[in-house]
Amino acid sequence: MKIHPPYLLFIGDATDQLSIKMAQSAADWCPELCIGEYSVSGCTVSTGLTHTTIDEAAKQGAKTFVLGFANSGGILDKKWLPTILDALDKGMNIVSGLHDRLIDFPEIVEKAKQLNRTLFDIRHPIAEFVTGTGVKRSGKRLLTVGTDCSVGKMYTSLSLEKSMLKKGFDVSFCATGQCGILIAGKGVAIDCVIADFLSGASESLSPDNNENHWDIIEGQGSLSHPAFAGVSLGLLHGSQPDTLVICHALNRSTMRGLPDSQFPSIAKTIELNLQAARLTNPNVKVIGISINTSSVSIEDGRTICAQLSEQFSMPCIDPLRDGSDAIIAEL
Amino acid sequence: MKIHPPYLLFIGDATDQLSIKMAQSAADWCPELCIGEYSVSGCTVSTGLTHTTIDEAAKQGAKTFVLGFANSGGILDKKWLPTILDALDKGMNIVSGLHDRLIDFPEIVEKAKQLNRTLFDIRHPIAEFVTGTGVKRSGKRLLTVGTDCSVGKMYTSLSLEKSMLKKGFDVSFCATGQCGILIAGKGVAIDCVIADFLSGASESLSPDNNENHWDIIEGQGSLSHPAFAGVSLGLLHGSQPDTLVICHALNRSTMRGLPDSQFPSIAKTIELNLQAARLTNPNVKVIGISINTSSVSIEDGRTICAQLSEQFSMPCIDPLRDGSDAIIAEL
Repeated sequence: MKIHPPYLLFIGDATDQLSIKMAQSAADWCPELCIGEYSVSGCTVSTGLTHTTIDEAAKQGAKTFVLGFANSGGILDKKWLPTILDALDKGMNIVSGLHDRLIDFPEIVEKAKQLNRTLFDIRHPIAEFVTGTGVKRSGKRLLTVGTDCSVGKMYTSLSLEKSMLKKGFDVSFCATGQCGILIAGKGVAIDCVIADFLSGASESLSPDNNENHWDIIEGQGSLSHPAFAGVSLGLLHGSQPDTLVICHALNRSTMRGLPDSQFPSIAKTIELNLQAARLTNPNVKVIGISINTSSVSIEDGRTICAQLSEQFSMPCIDPLRDGSDAIIAEL
Repeated sequence: MKIHPPYLLFIGDATDQLSIKMAQSAADWCPELCIGEYSVSGCTVSTGLTHTTIDEAAKQGAKTFVLGFANSGGILDKKWLPTILDALDKGMNIVSGLHDRLIDFPEIVEKAKQLNRTLFDIRHPIAEFVTGTGVKRSGKRLLTVGTDCSVGKMYTSLSLEKSMLKKGFDVSFCATGQCGILIAGKGVAIDCVIADFLSGASESLSPDNNENHWDIIEGQGSLSHPAFAGVSLGLLHGSQPDTLVICHALNRSTMRGLPDSQFPSIAKTIELNLQAARLTNPNVKVIGISINTSSVSIEDGRTICAQLSEQFSMPCIDPLRDGSDAIIAEL
């Protein structure tokens, strides 16, 4: 699977900034791959990219039409079928990160077949996986792990990759969720794999490589999340990380989506992840902490990061405000 | 999903006792639900049940024909199609625990439809699951957890249920693998669930119940197995066990299928499972140890169990040799 740019990001009639996370991720991290965004009447949000119609994008050589919105349940509303068929007609492949699959809509499948276009249901892995082996692979690996879901593991991973590329490292970003897959053009939505193959699929994401090559692997969930810890553990074991970066967002008190849950400390998160990771890499180390400080001022965020850096004797940064160079210096 | 007895256990032309694990499990744990076993020319193994042809079984009222064998890859060999079609003709539903699905064979699907029979691909969950919530449920739960895969978690669970039933407990066995599902007539093959729903599916397996009702949940894998720990953790979190029983088989030195792996101690297994289980049930306790001592003499097995019992200050038994009453006394 390889998704070809340039992309046209479709955000429909979205009215909630969070619901266009997939389009926003691409606009933030690979604007050079995006021709623009396309929205329709009623839409009140934007990724910040130029509004571009399907016809205009086609003229500019758009290769892929991205359904860049999501909704609770991941439903593909039938009202978008004419738009999708139009994009197919104008020469584009289609990417969807929704739970509903493009390949379950006969009209879409038929037209794609007629025109020789590709449909990417990136939330549904198509590869055949095997079970994990735990066998050590060559090359180096960094995994981002979190106190919770949605604390910035993907953004941290991408920021780390960006810093490393600038410094001349041989580095790849390994996407494990639909937004990351769109940005990287490939990857595996690890929480959509059959449970038996969690570690095996994770192993396949960062295969043997040159001794000095780094895979920066996007973490998922949290070992302390009652719903998703199994996914986090399978990804951790299969990734065999040499180094971990701990991700956290300020001002959380319960786990995402679970108002009655306990929130783990950063110290506990370090302890749990190191203990579990040692099963497949006894030499694993935590080399830094990444904090989403967007809920406080830049100054307050820096003060908090400085305190945490002292407390844990390692770099602590907000990658979006200050970049990831301080962590890269530890490699 | 409810599989109806009585069963006819088909073991084909198997020559390896381990390959008829599914039929053997049913013969061992629910012989009263089994009319007999059916094998064909070339078969050199047996469950110990009476050889019974499809015609004879049909006359005795067999309701379900069980593909009781497995092979590497879980392939359904086309040579068995005539046998399966014959069983359908003679009034039986079909159960398969193979990776290949009955519903992917048009001849089988067509005949089943014609005759109004049901096809059970019990390794492939059909329920729609939701993600876990971690919300405390009523009733009591016991989960068997292991040092490794295939150390006797299902047999221990069934032995515990049997002892508890005899003592008048209100108790149910919750199956999480294909053999258990055949014995219980229902359950979820937890390692075949989409990873995102691991905990949610596990929660659905032991729903709210009476305060004095016990669910005995069959564990899967091991927190120390590099391939399957994610499954074990999701099941552990979703089960919210009040009590754990640690399962182990003597004379193992590496994890099943992984010759280079480290084997965890019983102490480490207790520590890892208690730590993880506390996330969804802070009051969880380990109440006993169950050892598969079949690789040593009965006398040596008892000596080892007595030593472990003293070391860990809790009952330690081989449930198949000595029953589970000693552990039940702890409840």
